[in-house]
Amino acid sequence: MDYTILKIGGNVLNHPALLTAALDYFASLDQAVLVHGGGRKASELLSKMGIEPQMVGGRRLTDASTLEVVTMVYAGLLNKNIVAQLQARGCNALGLSGADGDVVHAHKRPVGAVDYGYAGDLDRVKAPFLAELLNKGCSPVLCPITHDGKGQLLNTNADTIAMATAEALAGLGDVQLQYCFELPGVLRDINEPDSVIPTMSSADFARYRAEGVVAGGMLPKLENAFAAIAGGVKEVVIGDLTALSTKRGTRLVDNA
Amino acid sequence: MDYTILKIGGNVLNHPALLTAALDYFASLDQAVLVHGGGRKASELLSKMGIEPQMVGGRRLTDASTLEVVTMVYAGLLNKNIVAQLQARGCNALGLSGADGDVVHAHKRPVGAVDYGYAGDLDRVKAPFLAELLNKGCSPVLCPITHDGKGQLLNTNADTIAMATAEALAGLGDVQLQYCFELPGVLRDINEPDSVIPTMSSADFARYRAEGVVAGGMLPKLENAFAAIAGGVKEVVIGDLTALSTKRGTRLVDNA
Repeated sequence: MDYTILKIGGNVLNHPALLTAALDYFASLDQAVLVHGGGRKASELLSKMGIEPQMVGGRRLTDASTLEVVTMVYAGLLNKNIVAQLQARGCNALGLSGADGDVVHAHKRPVGAVDYGYAGDLDRVKAPFLAELLNKGCSPVLCPITHDGKGQLLNTNADTIAMATAEALAGLGDVQLQYCFELPGVLRDINEPDSVIPTMSSADFARYRAEGVVAGGMLPKLENAFAAIAGGVKEVVIGDLTALSTKRGTRLVDNA
Repeated sequence: MDYTILKIGGNVLNHPALLTAALDYFASLDQAVLVHGGGRKASELLSKMGIEPQMVGGRRLTDASTLEVVTMVYAGLLNKNIVAQLQARGCNALGLSGADGDVVHAHKRPVGAVDYGYAGDLDRVKAPFLAELLNKGCSPVLCPITHDGKGQLLNTNADTIAMATAEALAGLGDVQLQYCFELPGVLRDINEPDSVIPTMSSADFARYRAEGVVAGGMLPKLENAFAAIAGGVKEVVIGDLTALSTKRGTRLVDNA
């Protein structure tokens, strides 16, 4: 592979031991981009500041005060501590919001039945700039704050940023996207951690879905992963940190 | 000049109209680095969070909670909003803490009579990386958060970062350092805004100091500026935003 994208979320960021392990692992990768999400720190800060969470259908609305807080926590506290920790591991990390170098451009989600506030829907990732950094030994660390090119910062889903970054880099080389989540991989039996499916093609996915082997919350994850593969990403691996760092988990490919 | 460093501080950051004017001006410069300080937002957030400022001799001590807050405000909120605003002006800004790309390396100030906490004293600025960014049309925007290379973020004086950045870049080209402060320049008569001294050599400075023309808070500013010139910086200009953007203010040079 030419490039690896590693996505980590709240399940890693909220647990110092897991974050340490994730950074050890990331620092061992060549030509890799880290994409991190939020975690509970933003909620803690919002509540400390007396800002009531605005929720619709389980999703937080990003009003102006919430945008300030997530910008501070994601682009400031989390991103810079991750970068400093990676530097301590000899990894020349460079933290980026989407505004930095115009690397991730988005637009404010149009107001429909719901006004999500300063939520950003993704337009494009500037892959050549990322590739230039990677080729000179820098490891970009992307936080889920983007911008609209008109001066507005936006709160954007980190999974979507990881996927779009993988697809954009796929135009410049072979890309593996690694999604770190709470399970060791896609399981045949949700009660059996040993039942990880090691490899899945898009044809396998269609069959597993028809048979009901994969269902529930796993479906949108796999749909997104196969969409990335259709978009040119060579493979997507999903699993927990132990699985990813020992080259296990579930490997999703176009054709097995 | 090959490179310009513009330093802005609280007097600009705390006033939206001045910040707008400063960003308009910065966006008009070629091959320029912006260094910004803090401003009152960090104090506001500390008080909202119920963190008591720890002061010694008029200086804030950076304990662990304060470091979290300044990292959020300086590297997150201020830095990313400045970058997004510059991008909206067609300036390809890239926000950096000292940890990003290891661009500003510092060490925790040794504990003497006073323990300043996580205050960083500067070791080095990685000028070749900044020059590479500048040469490809990127405009670095530095916030006053640095790191020690061992995973620790540090709170560092922005004036010192601006000066060290100017000196480091002076090894690679002609550098002009612009300090934006609250006066139109160095005044012959502090009560006469029209009495700006247009140009001052180090010999002039020695004479003005002996005559008592410059005194008080202006002395350390000028000492630092002439130290930067002794360190290879071509010239230092000090003045308010109107002065700087109209090429006035006081121009400090080695020999007039």
